[in-house]
Amino acid sequence: MSMKKDIGIGILGLGTVGTGIARLLTENADLIARRLGATLTIKRAADLEIEKDRGVVFADGVLTTDPHAVIADPEVDIVLELIGGKELALELIHAAIDQGKHVVTANKAMLAEKGVALFQKAEAANVNIAFEPSVGGCMPIVKTVRESLVGNHIQSICGILNGTCNYILSKITEEGVPFSEALAEAQARGYAEADPGLDVDGYDTAHKLAILSALAYGMEFNFDDIYMEGISGITAMDIDFAAQCGYKIKLLAITKYDRAADSAEVRVHPTMIPDANPLSKVDGTLNAVTITGDAVGDMMLYGHGAGMMPTASAVLSDIVDIGRSILAGGGIHVPLLSYQMENIRRIPVRPIEEVLTHYYFRFSALDRPGVLSKVAGILGEHGISIKSVHQIELQLNGGVPIFMLTHRAREADVRTALSKIAALDVITDEPVLIRIEENQS
Amino acid sequence: MSMKKDIGIGILGLGTVGTGIARLLTENADLIARRLGATLTIKRAADLEIEKDRGVVFADGVLTTDPHAVIADPEVDIVLELIGGKELALELIHAAIDQGKHVVTANKAMLAEKGVALFQKAEAANVNIAFEPSVGGCMPIVKTVRESLVGNHIQSICGILNGTCNYILSKITEEGVPFSEALAEAQARGYAEADPGLDVDGYDTAHKLAILSALAYGMEFNFDDIYMEGISGITAMDIDFAAQCGYKIKLLAITKYDRAADSAEVRVHPTMIPDANPLSKVDGTLNAVTITGDAVGDMMLYGHGAGMMPTASAVLSDIVDIGRSILAGGGIHVPLLSYQMENIRRIPVRPIEEVLTHYYFRFSALDRPGVLSKVAGILGEHGISIKSVHQIELQLNGGVPIFMLTHRAREADVRTALSKIAALDVITDEPVLIRIEENQS
Repeated sequence: MSMKKDIGIGILGLGTVGTGIARLLTENADLIARRLGATLTIKRAADLEIEKDRGVVFADGVLTTDPHAVIADPEVDIVLELIGGKELALELIHAAIDQGKHVVTANKAMLAEKGVALFQKAEAANVNIAFEPSVGGCMPIVKTVRESLVGNHIQSICGILNGTCNYILSKITEEGVPFSEALAEAQARGYAEADPGLDVDGYDTAHKLAILSALAYGMEFNFDDIYMEGISGITAMDIDFAAQCGYKIKLLAITKYDRAADSAEVRVHPTMIPDANPLSKVDGTLNAVTITGDAVGDMMLYGHGAGMMPTASAVLSDIVDIGRSILAGGGIHVPLLSYQMENIRRIPVRPIEEVLTHYYFRFSALDRPGVLSKVAGILGEHGISIKSVHQIELQLNGGVPIFMLTHRAREADVRTALSKIAALDVITDEPVLIRIEENQS
Repeated sequence: MSMKKDIGIGILGLGTVGTGIARLLTENADLIARRLGATLTIKRAADLEIEKDRGVVFADGVLTTDPHAVIADPEVDIVLELIGGKELALELIHAAIDQGKHVVTANKAMLAEKGVALFQKAEAANVNIAFEPSVGGCMPIVKTVRESLVGNHIQSICGILNGTCNYILSKITEEGVPFSEALAEAQARGYAEADPGLDVDGYDTAHKLAILSALAYGMEFNFDDIYMEGISGITAMDIDFAAQCGYKIKLLAITKYDRAADSAEVRVHPTMIPDANPLSKVDGTLNAVTITGDAVGDMMLYGHGAGMMPTASAVLSDIVDIGRSILAGGGIHVPLLSYQMENIRRIPVRPIEEVLTHYYFRFSALDRPGVLSKVAGILGEHGISIKSVHQIELQLNGGVPIFMLTHRAREADVRTALSKIAALDVITDEPVLIRIEENQS
């Protein structure tokens, strides 16, 4: 046992999360020390802007504009990488590992794209890279997958991982406003960036899903293999039609692993889920993840997926985990990617065209007899079996809307059929397709 | 680093959970070894009945009827105490600690009543006592409180922790059957014991709440200080009236800590919660816990709170945690009671009479003018402010039901007022009282 009773923290980036962790380390210092059995002290903190009042008092000499000064400080044991972005963050984490420093990062984009190589380097150097705050804010999703579910073959992960998208979809659902108006409201409230693409196009969700999939399956994979579709095409009408059939529409991150075939589905898209699925009740900026394991069945975590203090809480849990390893004189307590690194492998990702799922379609058609028979005929030719059809008395782009739910079908067949249907002269607008998850997970 | 690559497991008790963990260790052995970096081998397993076919193959010489033979086996590193009960279990855990063995236990009653002394002894001996399976089945609630929320002052814990009670209340809610019929159905399905008192009277929930409270607050306390009320008095009528006002009735375990006063409320009773509270959607045998922390806000865990494989999964996560400490050559990685043992203290528990909360009352009264004025008068004299009153056109025990919801009131005042109201000659039956949690937590 080491006799070390003070652990030095170095912070890179005093944005929202960096400021939050500085506050938490200050305000709850006594509590944390009583739980950990050692104090945590911010030795250095770097930001381009060090004159600004962040409501936190730093000791003299702590603040610097030079991130390398933080990493090089001999009193810093754990480096918090909270600057975001990819290149500088990656360079700084490499530098920290080179100097034998443990790292906590919230940088999901960097981890999703460069994580496995970083983890290999860290393991070789016997330093920890912790990343609980990178997915799901305060929800202990990384810890749950790596530690609590260690005895389970994980069958699927299904989550609402982006609070901005969930807020927008909840707003459209509750108020029937168009996407653009819901987005503007999210921006006005500070939930969405001026450039909202990372959120609404699904990138942020996909980055988080990449990390969870890697954890669940000890999986290295190509980020580009994740199928991704954003929420900008979702209309109040589709949400309303879904509700008539007992479904909600959520942007879901879905990973499913087929053990027999040794292949995975890894996809992010707007998804209709039944009202009985607990994820359907997760509204506003909240996040939730359902995980299905062979032993546990379905379980769910639910909480604030972003925000200053919830994310800081997750950073702190990583700091204390590493602190406990430091106090025990050790390095890495839990394998970085849930599996021992020599067991990491590349699992084939099934192309979206080969995915089998249920579908919602909406067509705009001329209001004349025989349309349904033509549409149904094309679907039937491609092996797509209709579960229910609903024709709505409503004018829409020179047509009337028809929506339908299908039984399980193959995406490639669906795409071919929809393109044939779109070409019919009785169809007045592009067909809409939304995938359905009939089961909870 | 130790070079140990096989960790020996000893099982005490091959009931449901013991059989489940034996199955999991066998069926998922490869997966677990790849994650842990070592194998887990069942070296000895004790049960009174060793001839029975449990669908698991044990190696020759593993089974014994003598639990002490398991503990004494030099190849056993971790002892799983899965026999339940209090005295023998306690004796065996003491024996295991004396021999330097780590322990995993699912024994909530024993931990709730004797835990702190055991933890002190284990800490002194540098052996681990892990108990994730004791609360919430597969939900990682112990890990979440001890590790993930380590930076948070925990403000409250509010949970549905007994699947039997939740099943019974869900059944009454959905089908309007009496308690006795719902209980009989729970027994027929194997969810409730022949003697259902431990479940329906709230003891099981209170034991779990005792453990969670101890974890959250580093708290040693008298189990008898927990206020406890079971569900046998809950009727379909009260559930229906609650629903008319937008509430569900659940058996909740509630701990709230008042930092300013340094006192805690620790109570188990049927509780009305608004439909907007996510706990209101947790039906059937499922469990869920909402935890509110100063940094994370509200978060929730949800999953199977009992059952062979979900509980075995929790046992396994504890085994692997301890296994990782063994591989690292160390003893206790995370303090046993979330706080360093020298910081454990006794927090005063507020008597139920001093609790302030909202209430639902139901009275049976003669159907004549002036009754409400008498009832309201008595409530007013005791400072109890009525939020709404509902008189129902329905005959009941020679009277008609009146139900009402109150603003926040003090339990002692409520009790005094209700006893005065019960004595009125226009009141035909004992008043019914159900506490309400207006907020999520």
